Amino acid sequence: MDTILRIDVSGDQPKTSKEPLGKYAGLGGRALTSALINAEVPADCHPLGPENKLVFAPGLLSGTAAVNSGRLSVGCKSPLTGGIKESNSGGQGAQILARLGYAAIVLEGERSGDDLYLVRISTEGVRVEKDNSLKMLTNYQLMEKFKDEYQKNGCMLSIGTAGEMRMANSTVAVTDPEGRPTRHAGRGGVGAVMGSKGIKAVILDGTGTKTLQPKDPEAFKAANKAFGEGLKKHAVTGEGLPAYGTNVLTNIINEAGGYPTYNFQSGRYKDIEKISGETQAELETSRGGNPTHGCHRGCVMRCSGDFLDKDGNFVSKQPEYETVWAHGGNCGICDLDAIAKLDFLDDDYGLDTIEMGATIGVAMEAGLLEFGDAEGAIKLVQEVGQGTPMGRILGSGTAGTAKAFGVERAPVVKGQALPAYDPRAVKGIGVTYATSPMGGDHTAGYAVTANILKVGGEVDPLKPEGQVELSRNLQIATAAVDSTGMCLFIAFAVLDQPETFQALIDLLNACYGLSLSADDVTELGKSILKNERDFNERAGFTKAHDRLPRYFMRESLEPHKVTFDVPDQELDQVFNW
Amino acid sequence: MDTILRIDVSGDQPKTSKEPLGKYAGLGGRALTSALINAEVPADCHPLGPENKLVFAPGLLSGTAAVNSGRLSVGCKSPLTGGIKESNSGGQGAQILARLGYAAIVLEGERSGDDLYLVRISTEGVRVEKDNSLKMLTNYQLMEKFKDEYQKNGCMLSIGTAGEMRMANSTVAVTDPEGRPTRHAGRGGVGAVMGSKGIKAVILDGTGTKTLQPKDPEAFKAANKAFGEGLKKHAVTGEGLPAYGTNVLTNIINEAGGYPTYNFQSGRYKDIEKISGETQAELETSRGGNPTHGCHRGCVMRCSGDFLDKDGNFVSKQPEYETVWAHGGNCGICDLDAIAKLDFLDDDYGLDTIEMGATIGVAMEAGLLEFGDAEGAIKLVQEVGQGTPMGRILGSGTAGTAKAFGVERAPVVKGQALPAYDPRAVKGIGVTYATSPMGGDHTAGYAVTANILKVGGEVDPLKPEGQVELSRNLQIATAAVDSTGMCLFIAFAVLDQPETFQALIDLLNACYGLSLSADDVTELGKSILKNERDFNERAGFTKAHDRLPRYFMRESLEPHKVTFDVPDQELDQVFNW
Repeated sequence: MDTILRIDVSGDQPKTSKEPLGKYAGLGGRALTSALINAEVPADCHPLGPENKLVFAPGLLSGTAAVNSGRLSVGCKSPLTGGIKESNSGGQGAQILARLGYAAIVLEGERSGDDLYLVRISTEGVRVEKDNSLKMLTNYQLMEKFKDEYQKNGCMLSIGTAGEMRMANSTVAVTDPEGRPTRHAGRGGVGAVMGSKGIKAVILDGTGTKTLQPKDPEAFKAANKAFGEGLKKHAVTGEGLPAYGTNVLTNIINEAGGYPTYNFQSGRYKDIEKISGETQAELETSRGGNPTHGCHRGCVMRCSGDFLDKDGNFVSKQPEYETVWAHGGNCGICDLDAIAKLDFLDDDYGLDTIEMGATIGVAMEAGLLEFGDAEGAIKLVQEVGQGTPMGRILGSGTAGTAKAFGVERAPVVKGQALPAYDPRAVKGIGVTYATSPMGGDHTAGYAVTANILKVGGEVDPLKPEGQVELSRNLQIATAAVDSTGMCLFIAFAVLDQPETFQALIDLLNACYGLSLSADDVTELGKSILKNERDFNERAGFTKAHDRLPRYFMRESLEPHKVTFDVPDQELDQVFNW
Repeated sequence: MDTILRIDVSGDQPKTSKEPLGKYAGLGGRALTSALINAEVPADCHPLGPENKLVFAPGLLSGTAAVNSGRLSVGCKSPLTGGIKESNSGGQGAQILARLGYAAIVLEGERSGDDLYLVRISTEGVRVEKDNSLKMLTNYQLMEKFKDEYQKNGCMLSIGTAGEMRMANSTVAVTDPEGRPTRHAGRGGVGAVMGSKGIKAVILDGTGTKTLQPKDPEAFKAANKAFGEGLKKHAVTGEGLPAYGTNVLTNIINEAGGYPTYNFQSGRYKDIEKISGETQAELETSRGGNPTHGCHRGCVMRCSGDFLDKDGNFVSKQPEYETVWAHGGNCGICDLDAIAKLDFLDDDYGLDTIEMGATIGVAMEAGLLEFGDAEGAIKLVQEVGQGTPMGRILGSGTAGTAKAFGVERAPVVKGQALPAYDPRAVKGIGVTYATSPMGGDHTAGYAVTANILKVGGEVDPLKPEGQVELSRNLQIATAAVDSTGMCLFIAFAVLDQPETFQALIDLLNACYGLSLSADDVTELGKSILKNERDFNERAGFTKAHDRLPRYFMRESLEPHKVTFDVPDQELDQVFNW
């Protein structure tokens, strides 16, 4: 896993080339995508122009036998935020790509014309073929067309119609173990960059590849065992997530008064029991669906699942907490069947569910449809996938939609929609939303841990004190975890159990023959954030962009009657370590 | 003219209050709007939120007998750029407002509900009345409704449907001497801010007011005579503008190879003779229209006119050079009747013609319609005025439209569309576009003077040398002129004729009993730019925003085969005086 594959789409026929990692040696996942984008992409370029690049990078442990190491980083200058982007996905992509020997695939250059290309990567090499029969196919249509090629030993990375139309809300889909396009590098419009390069899909064929071998197999095996046991014994990673999936959070966050309802108008939703993880798991089970499923092979937390309709037919994968919130509580929709249908449409067209749900919330605020109108919401998402004028507005994201309809209450930071925790009632996550180089993003420093879940410490979510330090530490740790290929959910166990954190470090050391300490991991995290902030600064971001929209400081949130009151001066200290 | 009238729209019924100029004493026009916005509006607020304000300010000489002193400044945080905005309009507004004794009207506060209000201002006081019968009326419909009230001695400031819908491209219309809503504070979406305050129209009744008296009447009279004579003897202000209007430029700029054609794909337009000022004046005259008309009483340049159809019926005012370009050459449309129709629609709905034409150019680039499709362009503008989904996209401006359709080639700076001079072939104006605190704006530092017209010196338009100094000096001078209430076109005479510049200073000194020197005028200009850049810096603008889109550096422009090559480091020196 020490090769960079470049696919240059300039000219009549894309050209491929391979090179060693070189100056990027030792980097993987987010560390690699952010270093490469910062070094090779002019910060002031247009995200859809020829100077931008799209980088796929498996993590440092991807392709090995390490449990839960299947996360893929997708990096570029974001069409949604205008800043640097690392969007992170599960699915089979990272493992196969790593086993094929690639540390990164880089799509680059200037597309001429509007032909579409299909890329096939196997042990036999790389083929790039023009295939205009793929035009305006959805992700599930691509699956039907190519499943036989990749399902057994491979994976497909693809864009649906949204990415092909270069919408600022568009994803890269990554297929799961069943070959379905259910996992997505969702945030920041990475699909539009792939669309701007004219690459519709990349089919990875892992036939003939083997699990990557660590430098010290014995130590690796022992560390992996300790790590897996650590995940299994923690209440969140060993019980909550397997049983209810991420939607286990719905009741918890609503109870805490931080569940953004009706486009962030309230922190508690009256119909919460109809969409909670408990209700969802019960419904899934009663219909014969599987509520405990891994998004990639090697996962021991298995927080995914299948959502079937009342006749037992597959509707979508089990919608995640963020999706249930975005399309559900945020829009006043309490119908799990409608939410699963919306989840499917998002996956099929290649739309980020958080951005899409927040966008519909703004459309409801603008009076285009009523809060709670599930049929209306489904129709709107279909318009996005088809690219009608209304769909073009909504597909440009929450901020673009608010601008088009003259709405002030756009819950965005750096142009990216806020996820499912109100920053007024969960102030630590508010600090992350405001300051992350990624824009409004919960995964970048998931302070819900200490604010609400009492994991990794305890910081009162309603008070401004301590939130900056909490967010800072989590942003640093997260950047490092995002480089390993590990699923971020390992953090629950790693934060609470020192021996599990040590096992993670042992895995890295055994894999690469290193002797990293916890401090080295921290330094890695800091160096990634430094790269990202360096890019953003050159792209024109200042501390003025490290702020929540003013209405979060002005409008009080029920039930706690709180505003966001972490002082600006403190926000400016997040990266002052 | 020493009173600030505030209209606070918070609560059930807007409240009005008056106060002396106080700390703003001595300021007028742009100097006043920019000082007030910088002091009173939080730079990080949402342009459509309660913290933003809309300020109308006549210039320092408005309301006096000084010729051409009828320009009105409209200031706010711009919904289009996110930065500070001064949008400048002709029409009767500045003169009447000044004679009524107001240095500024400030619309402020948080609108509750969606009622619309009508404001009436006369010597008897200020009345604000709820009037929901005005909803979705266009500017010409408002004219029909209220003309009898204001036409003889007054003026109407109003928003059409675009401003009411809070579109980022929306103007405030200012009626001309015939009471028609033909003059506009066009740039930056100021109409949306008025819409966000729920004020549909402000009717100014000047009955009973008198021309403002200068401190030194004799000196003022002499200076005014010298100033008027200076305007009349200069070739541009005394001959070109009266005869052909601003459209006199069309042949000149096309000949210079700097006429942006087909969404800035070329610098020369094959059908130029069909839309030139000469052709336009001949057509207007042959139909019985008046090609020489002042946009406000007291104008001696009279660059406006009437455009009639072939049956002699009024279509619109004579479309300006920028409009003929935006809807004409930029879109490959060479039909003056269609352009006049588009001009009327823009005025009626309250849309900036530059932004609207550039937006349609991008829509053509995106493949929504063919270059040259006049009927298609008319239909699109009608959609904007009606607020259809397509209209909402286009009404959000050129940058928003490019984002919605995934187009890289958006000719914008700071989110505002570039006007009718290609920055590659007229590099001085390119420096102004890039660096003006206003975003893409030709009036902010009209380097076309020395680049093309050989007015105020001579700087080769195709070479990078000397452009920064040229733009710097013009930006400083323009800020000062925009504070006097003088029409910017006086600059042609003032730049070439020292005695006319002196006459302008004499006018100010005689009016206010001062002894300003040319250096003082320069200092005033600098202080305005300093205020504006201070606001923008706090709003998050950096030198990264003082750049043209990269494709102007990458793509060569015919016929001169030039790119924009003023180095970034030099651009950063524009405000280093």
